[in-house]
Amino acid sequence: MQTQIKTAVVGLGSMGYGIASSLLRAGHETYGFDINDAQMKRFQDEGGAKGELKQIASDLDALIVVVLSAAQTQEVLFGEAGVVTHMKAGSVVMACATVPPEFARLMEEKCNALDIHYLDAPISGGSIKAANGQLSIMASGTPEAFTAAESVLDATAETVFKLGDSAGAGSAMKAVNQLLAGVHIATMAEALTFGMTQGVQPDKFLEVISKCAGTSWMLENRAPHIVEGDYTPHSSVNIWPKDLGIVLDIAKSADFDAPISQAAFDQFKKAADMGLGGEDDAAVAKVYAEKVGLNLPSKD
Amino acid sequence: MQTQIKTAVVGLGSMGYGIASSLLRAGHETYGFDINDAQMKRFQDEGGAKGELKQIASDLDALIVVVLSAAQTQEVLFGEAGVVTHMKAGSVVMACATVPPEFARLMEEKCNALDIHYLDAPISGGSIKAANGQLSIMASGTPEAFTAAESVLDATAETVFKLGDSAGAGSAMKAVNQLLAGVHIATMAEALTFGMTQGVQPDKFLEVISKCAGTSWMLENRAPHIVEGDYTPHSSVNIWPKDLGIVLDIAKSADFDAPISQAAFDQFKKAADMGLGGEDDAAVAKVYAEKVGLNLPSKD
Repeated sequence: MQTQIKTAVVGLGSMGYGIASSLLRAGHETYGFDINDAQMKRFQDEGGAKGELKQIASDLDALIVVVLSAAQTQEVLFGEAGVVTHMKAGSVVMACATVPPEFARLMEEKCNALDIHYLDAPISGGSIKAANGQLSIMASGTPEAFTAAESVLDATAETVFKLGDSAGAGSAMKAVNQLLAGVHIATMAEALTFGMTQGVQPDKFLEVISKCAGTSWMLENRAPHIVEGDYTPHSSVNIWPKDLGIVLDIAKSADFDAPISQAAFDQFKKAADMGLGGEDDAAVAKVYAEKVGLNLPSKD
Repeated sequence: MQTQIKTAVVGLGSMGYGIASSLLRAGHETYGFDINDAQMKRFQDEGGAKGELKQIASDLDALIVVVLSAAQTQEVLFGEAGVVTHMKAGSVVMACATVPPEFARLMEEKCNALDIHYLDAPISGGSIKAANGQLSIMASGTPEAFTAAESVLDATAETVFKLGDSAGAGSAMKAVNQLLAGVHIATMAEALTFGMTQGVQPDKFLEVISKCAGTSWMLENRAPHIVEGDYTPHSSVNIWPKDLGIVLDIAKSADFDAPISQAAFDQFKKAADMGLGGEDDAAVAKVYAEKVGLNLPSKD
């Protein structure tokens, strides 16, 4: 029988909400917190526990932080609310945002100083997998942190990559994955629109290239959005100036040249500057299309 | 029962040799020509027909041109040897090099003026698939050109994409595929070496990323070469300044910005300038590694 634990998820966006729901479904007492009151209410209506984070923090076995950035992670853990200072010894913080490895190491150190375990646990897989408890988690931390987080990992992940026995390795692998994922989305957009200038229609592009050496996971996942003209954000343009920005910051501090990542970053930045930040990230194709006057497929 | 035809393959490199062998295996009388006499001799020893191209041209049902560039294709078809002028009405030229769509249209026009069919037929799949008669062919041409090339396609291809009823569409799709394939190889190299600066070992990179959203066909095919330190050229660095150069030329003539392709082109160009042109294209990783002083895995 699975041990029932007390958990809280901070950040009920598309990923965090799925994680919180998966924890509930597995029978764990789960609090959900978000700056958006409607999301918190929705989660409580579905069975989430009620309470103030600061007050219930000392009861928690695990705190899962699914916010957008290092700054937000820092604020949740050690900011005004200072949740970690209220948590009990031996409980675990599982941090899921994409952050620099160095930041993950710093958070681990600060948590450990308070006898709190820390699992560096960036996530991958998208909102549907999050909702189904089938995430891929790129995790690193002490054996004790893995043990403390076991029930959470069981409830939320299909695959847990155990990447090392201290924080940082998980975030490093996540940065590597984001480099590739971001470049592949922008390259799909570059190739699809390039093809259009030569008479290759987007549906034919998808049909042929997905069976050829030029394919990628992201191409097969995102090109259909362009073919269907549907930019409902499963993952938004705004993710990429942030995540590729983290990649470029890490690269810079390692004196590493990443010219392809830089070129992809620039295209996402242009998309955001065009006001497309809230659209699906496949909308980076609009940067290319506008420059050369192409009409991408529309939804109707 | 399959009709036996007379064919000639010009260009017995890794792809052309496989195509010629596949034609022989299917029972077609097949000549093989190459500037490398040893390759021609080897093919004849395996059952290839003997003769001078100019003299046997009038007997051919199909001429398959598997050279490296538009210039070489032009030279074979209409250069000094002027093979097409000797071919009989109703026979077909199948052109497999990666060339600009406009060049393919021009060749079709010149062939058709001599009552010769022309199939714009760039190939994909690598040397092993070529040897096994399992290529993917991105083909366009008149229905008559497809009919005339049917026995050749049957003997050499696993998948024939029929992309249009005139030359150019096949080459356009091939350029799109090469854009993606080239960028994906260079991006794999960028991500793998970036990861190394953060303590992610190449074998772990391959193990994890190939199961994540950052994967690509090329990553799964080429990253093992780096992990094993084996740069035996299955497809060489030199392919990419050429093929991405074609992409960039086409893009330029369409006033299309392709900044990611440009960045990848620059990396392959640097690799060639470092003397790595004849190595496997995964050797583009050495450009990144040298810049930052990383030791890539070695073969031993």
